[in-house]
Amino acid sequence: MSERDLGKADTGGAHLHRLVLFSDAVFAIAITLLAIEIHPPEHWRGVSDLFRQMWPKLAAYAVSFAVIGVCWFSHRRVFARLVRADGGLDAFNFIVLGLIALLPLATELLWEQRGGQALPVYVGHVALIGLAMGLVWAYAAFVGKLAEPMPLGEALYVLVRVTLLPGLLCGLSIYSLIYPWGWALIAVVLLGLNWIGRRLAGPKAA
Amino acid sequence: MSERDLGKADTGGAHLHRLVLFSDAVFAIAITLLAIEIHPPEHWRGVSDLFRQMWPKLAAYAVSFAVIGVCWFSHRRVFARLVRADGGLDAFNFIVLGLIALLPLATELLWEQRGGQALPVYVGHVALIGLAMGLVWAYAAFVGKLAEPMPLGEALYVLVRVTLLPGLLCGLSIYSLIYPWGWALIAVVLLGLNWIGRRLAGPKAA
Amino acid sequence: MSERDLGKADTGGAHLHRLVLFSDAVFAIAITLLAIEIHPPEHWRGVSDLFRQMWPKLAAYAVSFAVIGVCWFSHRRVFARLVRADGGLDAFNFIVLGLIALLPLATELLWEQRGGQALPVYVGHVALIGLAMGLVWAYAAFVGKLAEPMPLGEALYVLVRVTLLPGLLCGLSIYSLIYPWGWALIAVVLLGLNWIGRRLAGPKAA
Amino acid sequence: MSERDLGKADTGGAHLHRLVLFSDAVFAIAITLLAIEIHPPEHWRGVSDLFRQMWPKLAAYAVSFAVIGVCWFSHRRVFARLVRADGGLDAFNFIVLGLIALLPLATELLWEQRGGQALPVYVGHVALIGLAMGLVWAYAAFVGKLAEPMPLGEALYVLVRVTLLPGLLCGLSIYSLIYPWGWALIAVVLLGLNWIGRRLAGPKAA
Repeated sequence: MSERDLGKADTGGAHLHRLVLFSDAVFAIAITLLAIEIHPPEHWRGVSDLFRQMWPKLAAYAVSFAVIGVCWFSHRRVFARLVRADGGLDAFNFIVLGLIALLPLATELLWEQRGGQALPVYVGHVALIGLAMGLVWAYAAFVGKLAEPMPLGEALYVLVRVTLLPGLLCGLSIYSLIYPWGWALIAVVLLGLNWIGRRLAGPKAA
Repeated sequence: MSERDLGKADTGGAHLHRLVLFSDAVFAIAITLLAIEIHPPEHWRGVSDLFRQMWPKLAAYAVSFAVIGVCWFSHRRVFARLVRADGGLDAFNFIVLGLIALLPLATELLWEQRGGQALPVYVGHVALIGLAMGLVWAYAAFVGKLAEPMPLGEALYVLVRVTLLPGLLCGLSIYSLIYPWGWALIAVVLLGLNWIGRRLAGPKAA
Repeated sequence: MSERDLGKADTGGAHLHRLVLFSDAVFAIAITLLAIEIHPPEHWRGVSDLFRQMWPKLAAYAVSFAVIGVCWFSHRRVFARLVRADGGLDAFNFIVLGLIALLPLATELLWEQRGGQALPVYVGHVALIGLAMGLVWAYAAFVGKLAEPMPLGEALYVLVRVTLLPGLLCGLSIYSLIYPWGWALIAVVLLGLNWIGRRLAGPKAA
Repeated sequence: MSERDLGKADTGGAHLHRLVLFSDAVFAIAITLLAIEIHPPEHWRGVSDLFRQMWPKLAAYAVSFAVIGVCWFSHRRVFARLVRADGGLDAFNFIVLGLIALLPLATELLWEQRGGQALPVYVGHVALIGLAMGLVWAYAAFVGKLAEPMPLGEALYVLVRVTLLPGLLCGLSIYSLIYPWGWALIAVVLLGLNWIGRRLAGPKAA
């Protein structure tokens, strides 16, 4: 590798660093804005009445906070595997951020329940974020060659994991609020993914 | 330590760095959003009338600003002792951030005083933040082994301090607005904690 | 270069770093605030009705998100060529940030369509951002000597590109929503700029 | 200097770095929130009518944007002279940030003009920010010994400059909107400060 190439790699690294900081800022703002549309009720008597009235909003807040948390976690893991950035990564990452920034709106939809189908819209939105994150990884790993070298199997595993996890976890979590044994399903999914991840990482560690 | 382990430690360090930046962004946004629900009164005549009308909101703002300041201070001190991060730390830290982001709502509750028990709800909320911060430290120091090596006594002291300080300071501060000698209690608590902290750090420095 | 000069260059580098982080934060907040004025409709029946009612707002959101994306991209490319910062750069960069922070307002103007000329005001606003970015680059490259050394032709090319791109892309994109062959114009502009950029960079690479 | 001292200095450096990033985030959010209370007018006909109606809000926005810009500039220059941070610096810096975060509220006061004395309240608020910034510098330079070594005269000059500049510039700028020769006063103040600054830095450079 010539010095010029090294220089270019460095630039790509600084680009990656700035992209990560920018994404973090958008995640942090979206997660904090989730709360600002929540206001105290007009009238309330005592703590238990306050919580009874605010329950739907606080539950929707907690769900969305967890959703953005899972997405941030996915985003961090994807970007930890990258070594540089380019314009294409910027563009696909912007789609993810654009959907993340809309989550406060989807959350408002969820707690207001003015229309009958707020829940599928919300879960669909979260699934879309997963899909966009999958696009980011697919572009970075297979098109832009921005990731550190890894076996194809691992790259595909990351793709499946990143694409499906947000929608799956969100759908199952809400499902679990109605049918308690949904939590068992979530545990199975997480343990299964963990097991596949370890099996894929295993030979490398040996 | 093999090269691979070093690599893993590095990754944990980058993870820690990104987690700290993300947390800082949430703290900064929450602290700035405290002010945006405050609006000037409809009618006012002269500066003194303006302050008389805005007094409750500005006082609640100052209290919440100080609360987030103390929490940020605690958070900074906890994370300065960590050397790496993992998924569990992410999760517990997210609970802290979720409670911090709700503080503008609790502040609104405080200044509106529409229900009779806004004050205990607010102090309870702040105490909960301390508890969550305690969980972060307990996980990092005792479960995840993410902290730099330190004597058990010091780790336990940090735990107690981080868990109790926010709620205690907040409760005592508000108490002091009514009973002026509450300030003396605060001074005693802070000096006492400082004294214990120095005694614990003492043998190491000797 | 004496040690003192090195020290000054270092300071300029830290200054540049802090300026970039500050700008990124403003971009990230503006891009996330685009969404918070969007609220769900009062009444809606089913998913398709929801999207029919929210369509104008979501379209305006997508356009503005893309606009800030393009501006961030331009900003990143300009600042990647700088090696230090000074007070003049601060001032010109603040004009850019001031216009970026107004974009949520211009977006609201766009989707409300209460007056007849919201579209030209919006495109004019975006063109103004390009102009301000051009000022930043002109100051940095020609007055403050803050950029890394490069041929005059390349510096002028960056100036033209940075100044015209935001307004041109935004105008053509909106135009393309009405006349589909506007997309071909965009492709021509982007390919043309790319071709000139490569020709300018070409001799250096040879 | 022993290794332990070095370690402490390092920790102070990391502390300083985190404090600067945190402050930048608050500045960036406050500056961006200035715009979100501005909404388009209910009815407007054509571009000139739009600007005629929005003129007071846009002017107040521009003034506040410039004020935060000047404060950020002061803050950056103060913190560029520091080598480490401590708890006292945190506390004084928090007062600055608390006042900065209230500036969107003061700006709203300014453009609504519901009371007769919005202007002196606003200028007083800005002057208070300068005072708080002066406290930060006085603590850092004279009490906490957190600054790099410099002659006493220079430290005092920074103190005067940082304390008076925001209020002075803001007061004179608004004054200049009424009496145009106020701009000449601003030029005199800036040139005078620049001249003193150079004379103080002069002997060092010789």
